[in-house]
Amino acid sequence: MQLATSIEELRAWRRGAPPTLGFVPTMGALHEGHLDLARFARSQNAAVVASVFVNPLQFGEGEDLARYPRDLAGDREKLAATGVDLLFAPEAQEIYPHGFSTTIDVGSVGEGYEGALRPGHFRGVATVVGKLLHLVAPHRLYVGQKDAQQSAVLRKLVRDLAYDCTVTIVPTVRETDGLAMSSRNIYLDERERHAAPSLHRMLRRFLELVKTGEPLEIARTKASTVLEAPGALDYLACVDAESFEPLQALRSNAFVIAAARFGRTRLLDNLWFPQ
Amino acid sequence: MQLATSIEELRAWRRGAPPTLGFVPTMGALHEGHLDLARFARSQNAAVVASVFVNPLQFGEGEDLARYPRDLAGDREKLAATGVDLLFAPEAQEIYPHGFSTTIDVGSVGEGYEGALRPGHFRGVATVVGKLLHLVAPHRLYVGQKDAQQSAVLRKLVRDLAYDCTVTIVPTVRETDGLAMSSRNIYLDERERHAAPSLHRMLRRFLELVKTGEPLEIARTKASTVLEAPGALDYLACVDAESFEPLQALRSNAFVIAAARFGRTRLLDNLWFPQ
Repeated sequence: MQLATSIEELRAWRRGAPPTLGFVPTMGALHEGHLDLARFARSQNAAVVASVFVNPLQFGEGEDLARYPRDLAGDREKLAATGVDLLFAPEAQEIYPHGFSTTIDVGSVGEGYEGALRPGHFRGVATVVGKLLHLVAPHRLYVGQKDAQQSAVLRKLVRDLAYDCTVTIVPTVRETDGLAMSSRNIYLDERERHAAPSLHRMLRRFLELVKTGEPLEIARTKASTVLEAPGALDYLACVDAESFEPLQALRSNAFVIAAARFGRTRLLDNLWFPQ
Repeated sequence: MQLATSIEELRAWRRGAPPTLGFVPTMGALHEGHLDLARFARSQNAAVVASVFVNPLQFGEGEDLARYPRDLAGDREKLAATGVDLLFAPEAQEIYPHGFSTTIDVGSVGEGYEGALRPGHFRGVATVVGKLLHLVAPHRLYVGQKDAQQSAVLRKLVRDLAYDCTVTIVPTVRETDGLAMSSRNIYLDERERHAAPSLHRMLRRFLELVKTGEPLEIARTKASTVLEAPGALDYLACVDAESFEPLQALRSNAFVIAAARFGRTRLLDNLWFPQ
């Protein structure tokens, strides 16, 4: 696996790249969920690029940019083992040089839920991925279902601006107790870690209830009792998978989504309801 | 010359396009200035795409979207004669289908002058060109110096988001009396048309004065007397050619820029001061 830290090195590699190219953008601190994206990309393309870039533009004030976990050496090893061809790991000033001021905003799909709790977050996500897609010029982009709203934002970005690539959403990888893998799980202390899988159980209970026709408000009240202390619920909702508009009743191509705080750590999870 | 009105037709043509491709985006109602862009592109590339698209996103409320001049048959003939290979002329819903909501904003370069007088204008410009660049995937983009702030916005777009193409600014084409060619000149009545070249003379006078070291405010006052009635000045300024920040004194790579209203028609003009 080659490493590129500059745009120039990446472009030099890209000029000689084979005719199908998969791309896995990440913020590093890689876990099995990320590696699944890379393996998926590996199975569908002649070459795979992964990026490790902790994107300052998607962190708000008071968020965990400075303490976000970083382990480039470990990430390199893991990506090489999955058969990634090129790792692009630029410094912030390579992507955002002095005077950088352009932003991409996908509109309402990024305004509720995580967008409401983290103003500017999805503008930062759309902007960096919008730029990375120009640099890497992949045929297929791979993103994880765990960050469902982010995946909807990126699908909207690619569709609205007609980027010439497809977006593949790869299912969430979970620990054996059901906790969705996340780079932020390492922040959890023992009590928080023990309670954290109840986020997934709450979502399953919520989905069961709304499937049986239980009104959303009642299902939400019943299901939220499944969340274990010290988990504090931010939201539990049913949304359209494309627009992320709230739904008043379950219908096809929906997500049930939830976010909860465990101490200082916010965790997200979701289930997809395809039909 | 081929005509494509759908994205599908454009993409089909693009797959067989030669290895260097120039692109001239326009809003139609073509004049010699546009045709110069096309001829320039023709001389530097194996193939040339021009687009004719009156972009609703860059018109504000109460602006002239509905009455903006349209002449697709005439435009086709003119472009074919300059050797353009493909004309892309989509309807608005092809570029902005139902639910479209993404915008690109390049920041401060688009906030003063035209951006201040036409809120959202350059966001509309950056968004449509950002999308057209994905659809056409040219190696070189050609824009006219007449719309100097627009050209600065597009250079910023391409640089910040790392589009893989160069931007060439082509000098303004003028009528024999100095009036910069513009699709909006046809709106001028006889008296307005007679006064309109004074916009260019005012700019030349302004540049002469500031070159000799005259303070900007004094130069502006003196030069603005050159503008003939019914011309009403919106602004006359000296700006950095890249950032479009106002300058307090002339220096290299600057534009002197002006806008004035002649009846209901706003005209723009500028002079470049390279060194």
